[in-house]
Amino acid sequence: MEFRKKLEAAWRKNSSFVSIGLDPDLSLMPSSMSALHQPFLEFNKRLIDATHDLVCAYKINTAFYEATGSDGIAQLKHTMEYLQANYPDIPTIIDAKRADIGNTNRGTVSFVFEYLGGDSITVNPYMGKESLEPFLAQKDKGIFVLCRTSNPGAGEFQDLLIDGVPLYQRVTKQVVSSWNTNQNCCLVIGATYPQELSAVRQQIDPDITILMPGIGAQGGDAKLAVQAALNSHNSGIIVSASRAVIYASNGDNFASAAREQALLLRNKINTYRS
Amino acid sequence: MEFRKKLEAAWRKNSSFVSIGLDPDLSLMPSSMSALHQPFLEFNKRLIDATHDLVCAYKINTAFYEATGSDGIAQLKHTMEYLQANYPDIPTIIDAKRADIGNTNRGTVSFVFEYLGGDSITVNPYMGKESLEPFLAQKDKGIFVLCRTSNPGAGEFQDLLIDGVPLYQRVTKQVVSSWNTNQNCCLVIGATYPQELSAVRQQIDPDITILMPGIGAQGGDAKLAVQAALNSHNSGIIVSASRAVIYASNGDNFASAAREQALLLRNKINTYRS
Repeated sequence: MEFRKKLEAAWRKNSSFVSIGLDPDLSLMPSSMSALHQPFLEFNKRLIDATHDLVCAYKINTAFYEATGSDGIAQLKHTMEYLQANYPDIPTIIDAKRADIGNTNRGTVSFVFEYLGGDSITVNPYMGKESLEPFLAQKDKGIFVLCRTSNPGAGEFQDLLIDGVPLYQRVTKQVVSSWNTNQNCCLVIGATYPQELSAVRQQIDPDITILMPGIGAQGGDAKLAVQAALNSHNSGIIVSASRAVIYASNGDNFASAAREQALLLRNKINTYRS
Repeated sequence: MEFRKKLEAAWRKNSSFVSIGLDPDLSLMPSSMSALHQPFLEFNKRLIDATHDLVCAYKINTAFYEATGSDGIAQLKHTMEYLQANYPDIPTIIDAKRADIGNTNRGTVSFVFEYLGGDSITVNPYMGKESLEPFLAQKDKGIFVLCRTSNPGAGEFQDLLIDGVPLYQRVTKQVVSSWNTNQNCCLVIGATYPQELSAVRQQIDPDITILMPGIGAQGGDAKLAVQAALNSHNSGIIVSASRAVIYASNGDNFASAAREQALLLRNKINTYRS
């Protein structure tokens, strides 16, 4: 199914704007999990089973898997197969932050959309639209363009002024006016930057979805961020949380603790809507 | 050994500024290779054996390997092991073009420097220095920052003017003035843009090495590019060629054809040094 429709259905079905980041880290997960044969996969399965009715998406950052090489990539693939077999209605965001020349991006398209069967991908805008065409041409997939990222030093280039307009707003303008011909573009803006969220939402209202990492471990204020990012239909956001949810406990109750945090976050965000 | 010293030794030993891109593609390699059990590895081994005395580095773009998932990543690992066992003096550039928040970049550091044992990596500057610290802190590794990329649409953001200075020159300025405290930074600038190469070389002369993709299949003029990029010591460049060398023939003579092209390119570049 087309990414956007799948996302809209998951928003409705689970009354949730929360995306959980499945970012497994052997040093943070319970020792009962890290000792298993496929620790990333087993950890993810427990988290997914415990939270699938509370999320609008799962976000999977490839760096946590490639950290252990081919074995990690195989566990990523098995995680995707588990999701597709058991929870096919929940869309996936492959957080790969890729950008290369067009010829090379085709390799990433194979990886993310064919091998993994992902529904969407995050991409870096620095090399321009022309290089990203292999992604933008995927009509049924979501293409999340990094805009104003959540890290403390994001402004070094993203805030530089071009004719009085910061670069991240120029990226937004290009996405709206030229990149989004297949209506498959979304933007990534850190929840740590509510003013920037608000400025971008005005540029893109109501159609383009905003993915907001940075709530939880990164310290973003959920209420400010959500109210700045919601579109005029009171929707259009994905709030991504990872460490604060999946490592809520490092004991054997980690999955139920994650569910509790996900439930709290989902409900809290929903109170900010109206 | 420290990347920079390893590179300088390879420049001298092989009298070469040429880096060959090991970018295997099943649809372009000879059918006698693509039919093998580990086609990427076998193709690479033949290319490496045929060219190791003609190059200053091998550049490995991860996208070509991840295209086939965990199996491709395993073949990438085996390629690195083959290089380390047989040609430990030739430095490797892991062309991954990564950028993420610092926490996540640590996964990529594990992948590139521990799992693969790479000597250097390419990174994307859009998220700023703070996010790239896990890379910049690797004193013995080379950190190649994308500056003015080789693709036709590179200028969409990279040429935007900030106080009269294009963004790619601002990236250069940040790298020189603030990112390069460990003297491990290099820049990536397309051979397709000799004017930009010349402008950046003036900003960084003589210390920072320029990696130039874009000669060959991408159509860059080698003479113009090399003369613009050489530093005042007549050195400081890595000219990366991939498709024009490794697919010089799609017959069983592919390795000797690649050697012939690499030799021509090495010698041609050396004549431009004056």
